[in-house]
Amino acid sequence: MTGYVRTLAERARSAAQAIAALDGEGRLALLNAMADSVEAGSQDILKANAVDMDRAKAAGTTGAMLDRLRLDEQRVAGIVTAIREVAGLPDPVGQVTRSDVRPNGLVVEKVRIPLGLIAMIYEARPNVTADAAALCLRAGNAVLLRGGSEARDSNMAIAACLHRALRDQGLPPEAVSLVEDTAREHVLELLQLSDLIDLAIPRGGEKLIRFVAEHARVPVIKHYKGVCHLYVDKAADPALALRLAIDGKLSRPGVCNALETMLVHADIADEWLPDALAELQARGAEIRGCERTRALFPEAVAATDEDFDAEYLAPILSVRVVDSIDQAIEHIHRFTSDHTEVIVTTDKAAAERFVREIRSSAVMVNASSRFNDGGTLGLGAEIGISTTRLHAYGPMGLESLTIERYVVRGEGQARHEDVPKVEPAASAA
Amino acid sequence: MTGYVRTLAERARSAAQAIAALDGEGRLALLNAMADSVEAGSQDILKANAVDMDRAKAAGTTGAMLDRLRLDEQRVAGIVTAIREVAGLPDPVGQVTRSDVRPNGLVVEKVRIPLGLIAMIYEARPNVTADAAALCLRAGNAVLLRGGSEARDSNMAIAACLHRALRDQGLPPEAVSLVEDTAREHVLELLQLSDLIDLAIPRGGEKLIRFVAEHARVPVIKHYKGVCHLYVDKAADPALALRLAIDGKLSRPGVCNALETMLVHADIADEWLPDALAELQARGAEIRGCERTRALFPEAVAATDEDFDAEYLAPILSVRVVDSIDQAIEHIHRFTSDHTEVIVTTDKAAAERFVREIRSSAVMVNASSRFNDGGTLGLGAEIGISTTRLHAYGPMGLESLTIERYVVRGEGQARHEDVPKVEPAASAA
Repeated sequence: MTGYVRTLAERARSAAQAIAALDGEGRLALLNAMADSVEAGSQDILKANAVDMDRAKAAGTTGAMLDRLRLDEQRVAGIVTAIREVAGLPDPVGQVTRSDVRPNGLVVEKVRIPLGLIAMIYEARPNVTADAAALCLRAGNAVLLRGGSEARDSNMAIAACLHRALRDQGLPPEAVSLVEDTAREHVLELLQLSDLIDLAIPRGGEKLIRFVAEHARVPVIKHYKGVCHLYVDKAADPALALRLAIDGKLSRPGVCNALETMLVHADIADEWLPDALAELQARGAEIRGCERTRALFPEAVAATDEDFDAEYLAPILSVRVVDSIDQAIEHIHRFTSDHTEVIVTTDKAAAERFVREIRSSAVMVNASSRFNDGGTLGLGAEIGISTTRLHAYGPMGLESLTIERYVVRGEGQARHEDVPKVEPAASAA
Repeated sequence: MTGYVRTLAERARSAAQAIAALDGEGRLALLNAMADSVEAGSQDILKANAVDMDRAKAAGTTGAMLDRLRLDEQRVAGIVTAIREVAGLPDPVGQVTRSDVRPNGLVVEKVRIPLGLIAMIYEARPNVTADAAALCLRAGNAVLLRGGSEARDSNMAIAACLHRALRDQGLPPEAVSLVEDTAREHVLELLQLSDLIDLAIPRGGEKLIRFVAEHARVPVIKHYKGVCHLYVDKAADPALALRLAIDGKLSRPGVCNALETMLVHADIADEWLPDALAELQARGAEIRGCERTRALFPEAVAATDEDFDAEYLAPILSVRVVDSIDQAIEHIHRFTSDHTEVIVTTDKAAAERFVREIRSSAVMVNASSRFNDGGTLGLGAEIGISTTRLHAYGPMGLESLTIERYVVRGEGQARHEDVPKVEPAASAA
């Protein structure tokens, strides 16, 4: 079956031209039609989802995995609302990000255009099918979707609704192309298509993302995991520090912007740490600490380097006492996943130093790590969070699905006003 | 010798921290010291270059290749001037590109930071060693340089000067690391170091760039070739069109922003084309045309699809008569290298349509393709031209060597003001 995904991608790429040629109003109308079509097709989507759910249950799937797969009327309504929200976001395409008149009179602009064809590779949640399509098309791109096999029927039903909307708007349905055959070899094929795919975005567990990064010939933007740090400076407001520790670790332990490690300045540790850890423990957190932490809070389990490297996705917090902000920064440089790091301090110089020396995609001063997502930071919606320090870093909104290029307008300017006669080509190459 | 480049890259990455920690003035002082040091070391550089030149001549190298390798006092002075010019460019690091107060009071900024460690892989010209180092360090990065074996002694001598400047400024010389052993296997090793290298930029012939793209696990920004088009619309000013054809094709045929193909609207072809092609031919251009071109200008050689796909790097022009702007756009979509396309027209609607539907890194209206370079477009200097529609598209200046990340400042904001007690972690994972 070699060539199956190539054929899909060629059609999607050709459809991308039609999407790129739409103006902002055309793309707005398309997204609203997509929302209407999903709304109208919700019974079909729920029926298809029931097939996926039965298959998953028969295969022994339970718990969070099954919950991620499940759709109901409310969740389908949520998909419809999400598409309408993306439709309402400011249009990045055509934005002029720089404008300059050069000494020779040329008017030079940098203008945002779509990337082209974006591939999404993702796991269980069927809503990603609609979310990703909405974001990619709003920014003028086509999308090639490869969801998980467990959600195959749901994804096909959602894609059918999106195809109907595209056709109704006189557009090629291949602008949203679903890789229906979910065999692993087709993912491998997809990842080789560097002549057709402008960007691949994997979303899912670390294993999936490493597989994509390992095999990709196409550009990939990814994030492996979020090992987020909270540094409690010696000049921290104690109540504020506790509040951010509780919110960062416990408000939703299973997500990437949750805290994993707390670094505490020795000067504040004696006074602050025992009560703070007792409070965190009373609220359900398991504490794993360095030796100095355990001296102050004997109930803590001994933390290893593996702990400081772990994304627990669980209410476990590793804690280390440090002698200085330097040591905190050093620790973060060693263990960072480039996701989110927080400093709690009333000392402006310490805060600015932390901001300058930490190069993670988000640095927070006296604010919770949990704020690192596209919605909260003002992007409206996000297609992922990048910890790749290229193209986009941090939450990726619509802008991340475009690129700035140059438009130059002149009145006949030439580089050399008096071009000399050249020697003819040596050979008719 | 596996691990040779990894060791170099680890040291360079560690040195990158020291460069990133400098403020703008520190980086300015560093670049001026680099320029001084190259100036002071120019005799050593010329001696080393003589060794390279002798080796190259003994190996039978001649012509343009030998000229690219050659340094003299004037060229070394040019290297020094180039470093000083980069020193004087506006500092991209720390630029705030967005600033926003969220409804919850958080102050969200997007701020430019360095990428980290950049690898340059390049061929003959030794000046790239200094140019690339200057640009990367000005933007707060470290650089790992792998030049061609033919320029090995020159590159080592230039690097020695740069190391002296780094040491004099109290900085680790490894911030500019040269892969001195130029065996091909070390390039392969370099391209695998995705945990250490943030971006690789190949500069040289199409063969080198394809080799890099083929084997890279690290992110690569590249351009293969420039097949630039000039579309002469039916509403073109005839004199202006000829002027841009002459400048585009003949002012410097060997560079990537030179024209390769001219598309001419049928309505203007009868009148304009014969004289224009005669003039181009008289100035030394060889004309290869489609059938309709040859009917109007019988001296033209028959053009094939290979011609329309070729970057001649020579005074050869392929010419096609088209029936409409649609056909011109279609032709460009088929043969574009995403580099530079030009429309000549007095019809504003035609110009805007061309700009909208062509997605190359630079689109010119009534201006020469030869203007697509960093200097002319106002970037000051360029480290390359990207035709990869990701991160940077078109000439890459200092900004392209940085990334925007999020800095969030709060006063203790938490995502959930009232975090419920959680269930303890099921297992001590």
